[in-house]
Amino acid sequence: MGSHQSDRRRFLTESAALASLAVGAVQSVDAQTPPADARLKDLLAYGQPSRFDSTVRKSLGAATPITDTALTTPLQDLDGIITPSGLHFLMDHVNGIPDIDPQQHRLLVHGMVDRPLTFTMDELKRFPSVSKIYFLECNANSRPLRGPNGDSVQNVHGRTSCSEWTGVLLSVLLKECGVQDGGNWIVAEGSDSNKYTMSLPMVKAIDDTLVAYAQNGEPVRPHNGYPVRLIVPGWEAIRSVKWLSRIAVVDQPAMSWHEAGNNADTVPTGKALGFRFELGPKAIITRPSGGQRLPGRGFYEITGLAWTGAGAVRRVEVSVDGGRTYKDAQLQDPVLRFAHTRFRFAWEWNGEEAVIQARCTDEKGEVQPTIAEAAKVLGVTPEYFLQADHFNGIQPWKINRDGSIVNAIL
Amino acid sequence: MGSHQSDRRRFLTESAALASLAVGAVQSVDAQTPPADARLKDLLAYGQPSRFDSTVRKSLGAATPITDTALTTPLQDLDGIITPSGLHFLMDHVNGIPDIDPQQHRLLVHGMVDRPLTFTMDELKRFPSVSKIYFLECNANSRPLRGPNGDSVQNVHGRTSCSEWTGVLLSVLLKECGVQDGGNWIVAEGSDSNKYTMSLPMVKAIDDTLVAYAQNGEPVRPHNGYPVRLIVPGWEAIRSVKWLSRIAVVDQPAMSWHEAGNNADTVPTGKALGFRFELGPKAIITRPSGGQRLPGRGFYEITGLAWTGAGAVRRVEVSVDGGRTYKDAQLQDPVLRFAHTRFRFAWEWNGEEAVIQARCTDEKGEVQPTIAEAAKVLGVTPEYFLQADHFNGIQPWKINRDGSIVNAIL
Repeated sequence: MGSHQSDRRRFLTESAALASLAVGAVQSVDAQTPPADARLKDLLAYGQPSRFDSTVRKSLGAATPITDTALTTPLQDLDGIITPSGLHFLMDHVNGIPDIDPQQHRLLVHGMVDRPLTFTMDELKRFPSVSKIYFLECNANSRPLRGPNGDSVQNVHGRTSCSEWTGVLLSVLLKECGVQDGGNWIVAEGSDSNKYTMSLPMVKAIDDTLVAYAQNGEPVRPHNGYPVRLIVPGWEAIRSVKWLSRIAVVDQPAMSWHEAGNNADTVPTGKALGFRFELGPKAIITRPSGGQRLPGRGFYEITGLAWTGAGAVRRVEVSVDGGRTYKDAQLQDPVLRFAHTRFRFAWEWNGEEAVIQARCTDEKGEVQPTIAEAAKVLGVTPEYFLQADHFNGIQPWKINRDGSIVNAIL
Repeated sequence: MGSHQSDRRRFLTESAALASLAVGAVQSVDAQTPPADARLKDLLAYGQPSRFDSTVRKSLGAATPITDTALTTPLQDLDGIITPSGLHFLMDHVNGIPDIDPQQHRLLVHGMVDRPLTFTMDELKRFPSVSKIYFLECNANSRPLRGPNGDSVQNVHGRTSCSEWTGVLLSVLLKECGVQDGGNWIVAEGSDSNKYTMSLPMVKAIDDTLVAYAQNGEPVRPHNGYPVRLIVPGWEAIRSVKWLSRIAVVDQPAMSWHEAGNNADTVPTGKALGFRFELGPKAIITRPSGGQRLPGRGFYEITGLAWTGAGAVRRVEVSVDGGRTYKDAQLQDPVLRFAHTRFRFAWEWNGEEAVIQARCTDEKGEVQPTIAEAAKVLGVTPEYFLQADHFNGIQPWKINRDGSIVNAIL
């Protein structure tokens, strides 16, 4: 903690390095706004997937309407580590997706700062930028769901995606404003109708938190925060505020509804588990997985995704005997910190019942637990996780003799 | 060359490692084909860009219809290294984009092989796969165009894009078939109405050539080869055959129209420059660039993309005085072989005339030439490149006192 504080002091006293930044940005002379949906009518100007490709985001369960709060990424249908922006998972959109004109949008940084500043999108884009491939994962992802909600990797684990994000480090903007002593937290607010609000400790805000305006090369999609959002690497995605319009530097967390109430689990002692930031190590087999069917015995490549809030995935092991024995899976390079990592494992299925599962070890040496191990740590039964957040237990898929595959976690 | 031949012999005599591959693939039980365009009507199921985002592919020049042969990537509007699939450049689509049902599609591998084989898409996806972030670049990219066709980075250099591709190494399929002695080339054919045909030396075919079915996570888009295409890393993109339906192992190149005629330049001696495979090192400033306008003096981040057919970009330098002096630009990690590399360079514009340009050095030590240097090598005048392919000269952008930016190469 000592070195963090010393880093912070240096940060707070540093001069505003970019004070010479002129107003305005590089402009395209022929820039113009097309009429709504014009692009969709011109498939040459902006290509679309094949009409034979049925891969879409879905609500949990077959009976749930698509206007449900959770739209999940179809992990079972995807390859590599990049999630196409159109299939990035989406949470809490019941208040609507704001239709923001970037020319009108402003980001205000104020509170315990020397110089409160308002940035236009053009001004934000004038700052030095960085591009990083980072995953996002909802803190509610991977609940060991039952019934139709638990039948597929999309339903259970599809609240995670991975994109190349480009933006300005939040530290750069905070330097411009000059954070005052005691400004130990920020509160970030979105411009959706709900004014989504979330707190972030200053130590993370000035470390690697990104104010992102681009996703996979092009502007962030409306569903994912257009025109600008926070990206907080490795932390639960509820901190990565979308449609970002305000950052207040404060001395303590806001205790907003989303952090103090909605996302704080209680354990049997009555204690609330709030402010759990960093996501645990997780490896999930995406293919073969629940709801799929193997056509017959023979060679299969078991594949999936691994990630960790600690930074880099160090190792993924796969078991084809329900966890009795594990062997190392192959990690697809590049293995990037705070990004999904694709793993592969060659397997010959003999046609008998089998339980396949993966286990992640991260750069801190933390090992993904079984659901029993995770329950023991909290002093609860495994069923506790049916209603709790922040679960990173091992996901077993059971393959029956007819090739059908079912969720075998609970 | 000796080690290449020895590698090749080992490859040819290796046993078919995956002969146990069963027919069929992992199937989603609820897989179904939606009606055409159903997805476009449901923006929640498959998200789209904001209606305020006008970034699209364009034909060369303002007057050219979008049905022209070249649709270019809007490099000036993009960030990072991933090109969104909808904005990937597109060439030679005058014969139409085939509307291929993947259930009906087959890939035939035959010719000088022990076992001619036909693969369904399901069978292809059963093989061990790899995912790689690779650029593609048309051999006609970066011609030093004049007039309205030369006014922007999109028009001049937009025939390059970069995606994460997933597929099967072609070497794996060729092993299954067993290449016979003397099979020194392959001929790849697409299933477009034109039966696009291209030759590839066996040494590259069994090195890193990919039979790719996924692009940026999801199935390859129709415009880019759905359901399957070749990806030949670092080589001119005309070799990366789209809508791939046939590979013939042969003893010599096919001398197809696209390689013997259309894409073979002649120099003043009358000699034809055919079969130039590997693309040269290139760094292009994408922002600020031609057609844009700087709103005033002050801080700007000069940014752009670099790549090379040799593998990795080692260094990018930027000059703000028309090439008299250069300073190192910052390379955004990860710097990946055969991928675009994003570079950045902090610059304070004093409001005077300036010529900005970038220069790439690759892992082989090859340095991107000026147009004069490139002309000297071929014994031609710089104007030669107005009609020639395979040009990788340095691109200068001139910034006028009013902030307007023009192409200053010729």
